[in-house]
Amino acid sequence: MADFASDNTAPVHPKVLQALIDANSGNVPAYGNDPLTEKLQETVRMVFGVSEARAFPVFNGSACNGLALARMIRPYESILCHRQAHINNDECGLPEFFTGGKIVGLEGNHAKLTVASIGDLIETTLGHAPHTSRPKVISLTQSTELGTVYSLEELKALTGFARTHGLYVHMDGARLANAVASLGCTPAEVVAGVDILSFGGTKNGAMLAEAAIILNPSLIEDFAYVHKRGGQLPSKARYVSAQLQALLENGLWLDLGRHANRQAQALRAGLIDRAGVGLLHPVEANELFVTLPKVMADRLFAKGHRFYNWPAEGSDAYRLVTSFATSDDDVNTFLADC
Amino acid sequence: MADFASDNTAPVHPKVLQALIDANSGNVPAYGNDPLTEKLQETVRMVFGVSEARAFPVFNGSACNGLALARMIRPYESILCHRQAHINNDECGLPEFFTGGKIVGLEGNHAKLTVASIGDLIETTLGHAPHTSRPKVISLTQSTELGTVYSLEELKALTGFARTHGLYVHMDGARLANAVASLGCTPAEVVAGVDILSFGGTKNGAMLAEAAIILNPSLIEDFAYVHKRGGQLPSKARYVSAQLQALLENGLWLDLGRHANRQAQALRAGLIDRAGVGLLHPVEANELFVTLPKVMADRLFAKGHRFYNWPAEGSDAYRLVTSFATSDDDVNTFLADC
Amino acid sequence: MADFASDNTAPVHPKVLQALIDANSGNVPAYGNDPLTEKLQETVRMVFGVSEARAFPVFNGSACNGLALARMIRPYESILCHRQAHINNDECGLPEFFTGGKIVGLEGNHAKLTVASIGDLIETTLGHAPHTSRPKVISLTQSTELGTVYSLEELKALTGFARTHGLYVHMDGARLANAVASLGCTPAEVVAGVDILSFGGTKNGAMLAEAAIILNPSLIEDFAYVHKRGGQLPSKARYVSAQLQALLENGLWLDLGRHANRQAQALRAGLIDRAGVGLLHPVEANELFVTLPKVMADRLFAKGHRFYNWPAEGSDAYRLVTSFATSDDDVNTFLADC
Amino acid sequence: MADFASDNTAPVHPKVLQALIDANSGNVPAYGNDPLTEKLQETVRMVFGVSEARAFPVFNGSACNGLALARMIRPYESILCHRQAHINNDECGLPEFFTGGKIVGLEGNHAKLTVASIGDLIETTLGHAPHTSRPKVISLTQSTELGTVYSLEELKALTGFARTHGLYVHMDGARLANAVASLGCTPAEVVAGVDILSFGGTKNGAMLAEAAIILNPSLIEDFAYVHKRGGQLPSKARYVSAQLQALLENGLWLDLGRHANRQAQALRAGLIDRAGVGLLHPVEANELFVTLPKVMADRLFAKGHRFYNWPAEGSDAYRLVTSFATSDDDVNTFLADC
Repeated sequence: MADFASDNTAPVHPKVLQALIDANSGNVPAYGNDPLTEKLQETVRMVFGVSEARAFPVFNGSACNGLALARMIRPYESILCHRQAHINNDECGLPEFFTGGKIVGLEGNHAKLTVASIGDLIETTLGHAPHTSRPKVISLTQSTELGTVYSLEELKALTGFARTHGLYVHMDGARLANAVASLGCTPAEVVAGVDILSFGGTKNGAMLAEAAIILNPSLIEDFAYVHKRGGQLPSKARYVSAQLQALLENGLWLDLGRHANRQAQALRAGLIDRAGVGLLHPVEANELFVTLPKVMADRLFAKGHRFYNWPAEGSDAYRLVTSFATSDDDVNTFLADC
Repeated sequence: MADFASDNTAPVHPKVLQALIDANSGNVPAYGNDPLTEKLQETVRMVFGVSEARAFPVFNGSACNGLALARMIRPYESILCHRQAHINNDECGLPEFFTGGKIVGLEGNHAKLTVASIGDLIETTLGHAPHTSRPKVISLTQSTELGTVYSLEELKALTGFARTHGLYVHMDGARLANAVASLGCTPAEVVAGVDILSFGGTKNGAMLAEAAIILNPSLIEDFAYVHKRGGQLPSKARYVSAQLQALLENGLWLDLGRHANRQAQALRAGLIDRAGVGLLHPVEANELFVTLPKVMADRLFAKGHRFYNWPAEGSDAYRLVTSFATSDDDVNTFLADC
Repeated sequence: MADFASDNTAPVHPKVLQALIDANSGNVPAYGNDPLTEKLQETVRMVFGVSEARAFPVFNGSACNGLALARMIRPYESILCHRQAHINNDECGLPEFFTGGKIVGLEGNHAKLTVASIGDLIETTLGHAPHTSRPKVISLTQSTELGTVYSLEELKALTGFARTHGLYVHMDGARLANAVASLGCTPAEVVAGVDILSFGGTKNGAMLAEAAIILNPSLIEDFAYVHKRGGQLPSKARYVSAQLQALLENGLWLDLGRHANRQAQALRAGLIDRAGVGLLHPVEANELFVTLPKVMADRLFAKGHRFYNWPAEGSDAYRLVTSFATSDDDVNTFLADC
Repeated sequence: MADFASDNTAPVHPKVLQALIDANSGNVPAYGNDPLTEKLQETVRMVFGVSEARAFPVFNGSACNGLALARMIRPYESILCHRQAHINNDECGLPEFFTGGKIVGLEGNHAKLTVASIGDLIETTLGHAPHTSRPKVISLTQSTELGTVYSLEELKALTGFARTHGLYVHMDGARLANAVASLGCTPAEVVAGVDILSFGGTKNGAMLAEAAIILNPSLIEDFAYVHKRGGQLPSKARYVSAQLQALLENGLWLDLGRHANRQAQALRAGLIDRAGVGLLHPVEANELFVTLPKVMADRLFAKGHRFYNWPAEGSDAYRLVTSFATSDDDVNTFLADC
């Protein structure tokens, strides 16, 4: 039976686990003042090509987004995101909680924002000050909640718009590896113009490790307080940093992202021509959104395969997610049972 | 020159002012423990036909909504309202602030919610627990932000749905008088099934007076704390209660609502057949949303008439609001200048 | 029977009421864009001698403090005040709510802070960053919760300390008139070094009118959003501004403060030599904190006099508050019944 | 060189690490719906003797406290704790943030609350409703911030008081193992009358693992939402649960606590008779608070020993913390260098 329920049902990648074992020696200062967290800073700066970047290791992706956004807005400001963004739908109000502000969900094909939709909103809103929360951040999910990927051109348009309108850009990179692998670009290219990146490890082979990577150095100040007050400052930080280091070192994160993407393409290829199967969105990362005949879905569930019905995309819609741990056998068994 | 900018540009009705003058004698206990606030309780119970209702006088309509909603939800719950509701667009994030929760804006014609749209959302959301804030309140604006009015049948469907799904109903009645006057029903009929009513006075002849009227007695407990913590407990409460008493006594509020509605209809009648003028929504209360030829709008502004361009409804859309103080002369002069 | 329960049991001063009557003519722009609110700016600048000051009229004193503090801190910062400050004890957590931050209550004689107590705290706290909320504001209550008044020298020491340590100074001036009257200084002298003043009207003859007066011009930016989001932006702002203008015009506020202080001294003089009566704090404004023999207190309550037992100062402690409306007869009757 | 800076500078205990390695196999459902988290429930119920208890694994101790408290109060309520409690001083305002409420710090010898101090406060506060946040929780730290331990009798008095006054009891058990080891009681005895326990693993050999253990079953409802919204629901929960399971299994947590306590006693014994050394609090768990001659402290720092000056207890006060990893050699070397 294959598990396509999510990329967080997978185990930890052996190299990440080994890094934890290696880290487990002696006493080191707590709260991030340890050599591994220090080393992580160097790695992050090199990988993303930003010499003053600073990574704050955290436990959890929703919280990572919340901290990043809390640093960027005052409570009377708002965050613009796609209506289907994780921060708008899947974090139980955490972003409103952590920021005190408002999340504004906008429309856009395939879960992607466009400059056009944002532009109108900004103008109308500012003309209504102070009655409407002031837009301050554009939050982009890369890859998106629907398994698509912003092109570098699309990103450039959005970050350019942000810069000229005094907005910050947040990137929810819970699945950034899949996006970078898909684009075939450098990490630096994908975060050009981004102020804070929520860098995801947990969905990509880590045990529990994310990082708020501050790319705009002016936002580093006071982030330590936001980090602590949000309950996301690890006392034994070395064990979070070690995981991130293992992923970023030698490009492991991108290898894992490429693998997951490849398996998603294999699923896509195997499904696309079947009768009654429809593809709801382009498969550009490690997620497929498909319509399946009910009989096929029922058969797959009966065989023990795991994946979700996805009512937000229609009653006969389903989501399949691949991961670093998805084997050829998983794909083949699943397709054989279709 | 006529002022149709809003109903809160109007002055205070003479009877309300007289009530303030009458209230100004001697020392009385502070914080609502005064005879006028006590008397208001009786009046409210009679007017709305709920023997255990309790009114908490407050200063401000946005805050009144915020307090009501804060009493009804826990911070991990959500409030369902129309996308164009005041609580979603015009309160600078106050409802999120006061409740800690999430505002979910839904679609619906003429700014009205329907059971259909809510039903789907509830099911999808609860199936995703605890990842999405749990719906707990339906907030209805009566009359709506677009000058329309829920019929008693529409209300009954929505409050019935709420009851069967364990949801509270909040009614934003900043312009309730206009709605009741429009429906020709009793106040009790319009609030049937409502748990907390934000009763508006300021837009209808008061100086600054609203009330959170708790119609569901189980919500009275602890409201005093919510009231105080929100900065909305008047120390000299008699002066807020006196305004509300003056409006509710002898049906003054409905007389004023009827007057404003009548003037809106007069405007409508005078505008509807003109070339280039379009009506965007039915005129059921004291607000008109119209498209005007630019030359006509410019002429009116040049003559000194006050009203707002309303870009949310289109670049050539305008809003006209009448009030208790709108005179026949205001209407006629405006129409003459069209 | 005399009412010494509080200064907010008193009615509205006739000149304030007249100002409301005078304001009640014609339509004016809402939300503070009216001539009376504009005029108030000039008055405030003149009275406090700060040419760029800006007053934001609000409804309520607790909320006024909350808005001021919210403008000054980020949620990971703290506010230092006396342990017995209104913001620490009497606002039901509103300051924590409005700011998201922490209130730190310090010791000090007669409800006054001293530089010594603050200095130690700052050093210890900053050395423990980011584990303890960072001190950012000193909040001073003038006159204090115990009816005492900071001297100009004491204020100078505290504001000087604040400036050299990068802290803002907030002054809770719910009873500022009593303090200025007591000191015999100019209003400008009492607010020297203060960044935001919560100016109180309600306890000093207004109906319901306070103002957040921003004295540090760098804090004006964005205050309109804080104002709105806090539910304290009056739609019909002219009626709040009119009250404040009436008080500030021709020094009415100080006349009223002087009167209340005088009556407090009369009470003090009449009580001080009686057997069993003790004075708990110097009487420097309009409040007395005294110990009374139980039999005397019971007799006074039985005669219908109103005042509070004050357990925070001891089981036999009582508070007496005078106001602009306290008559010689009130004082004499009370003393005769002692 | 010995490291007595804190118990979170220590590494992970080998058995905990092994449990993580063992957990790393195959796909399992995310968000706590995995076999290890299920097994943890059984373990917790057995260890604490509460058949309906439920454990929610979390990443971080401050957050664990915040979630527990957020479940127990409404934002207009308060939490009573010792003035020196971690929630009052060392969590950067997280408890106020997570709960929206107020933290009230009380006095008490050796960082312990007493019924007497709480009783007075409750009465005064409730008499002042709704102007002061309503007390709702007593939060006890066991062992305390000053290395002392509440006796079972002291706990019984406090939990009994709570029950008769309608208050919940929260126990901050970041160092519960040290307390139970010190008391020689059963885990069930130490949590009798406690509603929610913050169970600490990180300071006692875990990598990063705490649990909010709900002992009062009525508080289980909705905790999943609080858990998620606080950013503390681990997607790969098995890896947190595995750590907790490893500690609780076969009493490892108590073995480790006993070891740490023993080393603290060894330090105490070696220090107590030296000239100029003073003991500030009884050593009942794994922390010592001592005064040291400056020359001795300087010498120890120069030798590379790690521990903190503790200005809150005096300029010449120092804190020494032992852990499961403190070796006899650590103790002996340190004492030799004194």
